[in-house]
Amino acid sequence: MKIDRPLILISNDDGVNAKGIQELIDSLRGIADLFVMAPDGPRSGKSCAMTSECPVRYSLVSKDDEVTVCQCTGTPVDCIKLALDIMPKRPDLVIGGINHGDNSSVNVHYSGTMGVVIEGCLKGIPSIGFSLCDHAADADFTPMLPYVKQIVAEVLSHGLPEGVCLNVNAPLASSFQGVRICRQAKGVWRNEWLECSHPRGGEYFWLTGNYHPLEPEAEDTDHWALENGYIAITPTQIDMTAYRMMDDLKHWNFSV
Amino acid sequence: MKIDRPLILISNDDGVNAKGIQELIDSLRGIADLFVMAPDGPRSGKSCAMTSECPVRYSLVSKDDEVTVCQCTGTPVDCIKLALDIMPKRPDLVIGGINHGDNSSVNVHYSGTMGVVIEGCLKGIPSIGFSLCDHAADADFTPMLPYVKQIVAEVLSHGLPEGVCLNVNAPLASSFQGVRICRQAKGVWRNEWLECSHPRGGEYFWLTGNYHPLEPEAEDTDHWALENGYIAITPTQIDMTAYRMMDDLKHWNFSV
Repeated sequence: MKIDRPLILISNDDGVNAKGIQELIDSLRGIADLFVMAPDGPRSGKSCAMTSECPVRYSLVSKDDEVTVCQCTGTPVDCIKLALDIMPKRPDLVIGGINHGDNSSVNVHYSGTMGVVIEGCLKGIPSIGFSLCDHAADADFTPMLPYVKQIVAEVLSHGLPEGVCLNVNAPLASSFQGVRICRQAKGVWRNEWLECSHPRGGEYFWLTGNYHPLEPEAEDTDHWALENGYIAITPTQIDMTAYRMMDDLKHWNFSV
Repeated sequence: MKIDRPLILISNDDGVNAKGIQELIDSLRGIADLFVMAPDGPRSGKSCAMTSECPVRYSLVSKDDEVTVCQCTGTPVDCIKLALDIMPKRPDLVIGGINHGDNSSVNVHYSGTMGVVIEGCLKGIPSIGFSLCDHAADADFTPMLPYVKQIVAEVLSHGLPEGVCLNVNAPLASSFQGVRICRQAKGVWRNEWLECSHPRGGEYFWLTGNYHPLEPEAEDTDHWALENGYIAITPTQIDMTAYRMMDDLKHWNFSV
C-alpha cells in the first residue's frame, strides 16, 4: 500500500467474478490502492438487505501490492460493513459496480449496487455506483471506463456533501453524447410475475417485469438521459424525509 | 368482501406468525377488508430486496369473509408485488408491520417493513409502516393500537401525496406523550460484527451493532421523538434525488 495514494473500497451485487467489477478493478489499478470485498455469487436486487438470520464469512481471493480481493457469503451491504471492520484504514471512496444492468429511476431502491453505495454514504464516506444498461455477462464496459476514471477523479478531488452519493448509469452504446446531471425519473414496474406449474403440482412464480416510464418526456431525468445516449449522474441522498409533507401532517387529527 | 369498505393489503418482515402482524390484523378487522401476504418466516433487515435467483411460492393460510391470509416464500417486497398481482382489486392502502423493533432514522434503509411500504408507494398506493421499539417476540402492542387505527383512518380519509409514504414508530412505553411529525434523524451503526471461531477452524461473523445518534438534541427528528416518549410519524419519499447537489455537479469536469 502506498502512503500518498487514495484507498478505494469496491463491491458489487453481481459477485466477485463478474466482468463489471473486474474491469473496474483493472481500470482503477495504478491510480489508487484497492480493497475489494464482493459477494461470492450473484446478489442482484438485494437492495440494502443485510444478513441477520445466519452468520457471514469472508475469504481472501488474491492480494498484491495494490489490490486486495476478498469474497463474502453475505449481501452487498454486508460486504461494506465487514470490509470497513477489517480494513487497515478508512477508505477515501466506496464504489459499487460496475453493475450489469440499469440502476436509474426507481431501480435505486432495489439495486444491490446502490446498496453498496448507500451503505458507504451512511458511513460518511464519498460513494459512487456505476451501472451499464446491459445485463449480459459479457457486456462491453470499454466505452464507459474513461468516464468512470474521470468521475472517480472528480469525486476524490471535490469530495461529496454529507449524506449524498452518486448513482451513475451509462446507456448501452459504443460512444456517448456526454454526461448529464439528472434527477431520479418516475417510473413503475409492471407485469412482474411469470407463473409456472411444477411437474408434481403447484405454481411457482419468477420475478420479471417491464419498466414503464411515467414521465418519458422530462429531459431532466436519468431515464431521459439514458434513452438519449447520455451518461446519467443522479445525486442521491440518504435522507428520505418528505419535507413538503410535514406541515400538512401537522394539521391532521392524531388524537385518540 | 363488503363493497363499501376499504381494502387493505398487509405484510411485514417478521413473518406471518409474528405477534405484531396478528395484532394489526385483529385491530383493523371490522373497519376494512384485509388481504395479508406475509413472509413464511423472519425476513428482518431485508430492505427492498426482491428474489431474482429462485422462484417464489405462496399458499393460503386462512380465509373468512373479511380477512384473507397468505404466506409467501419471498421477501417483504416480493409479498407486495405478488399480492398486487393476485388480489381481486387494487387495495386502498398498504401497511407494513407492526414491526418488532425500531425503524426510525437510518433504519428506514435496512427495514423490510419499510420495504413493504416503499413498494406500495412505488405502486402508487397510500402506504404506512408501523413499528414498535421492542424486538421481543411477546412485545406489548396494546398501547400503540389506538394510534394505529387513528392514523389508518386519517390516511384513508386524506390520502397521501404521490411518492410519499409514512414511517410510524412508537417508543416502548405504557402510554405516549402524543404524536410528533418528524424528519429522519442522522445516525450511524457502529461495532457491527461479533467475530466467532468455528470449532473446526475459521471465523464467522454475526451482524450486531450499536446505533449512535449524530444529532441527539435535534427536537424535530424521529429519534428525539422516540427518546422523549412520542410516537414519531416520518413522512418518507421515494424520490432520493439530492436536488441541492445538482447545480454544483453541473460545474464539475466530466469531459474525457
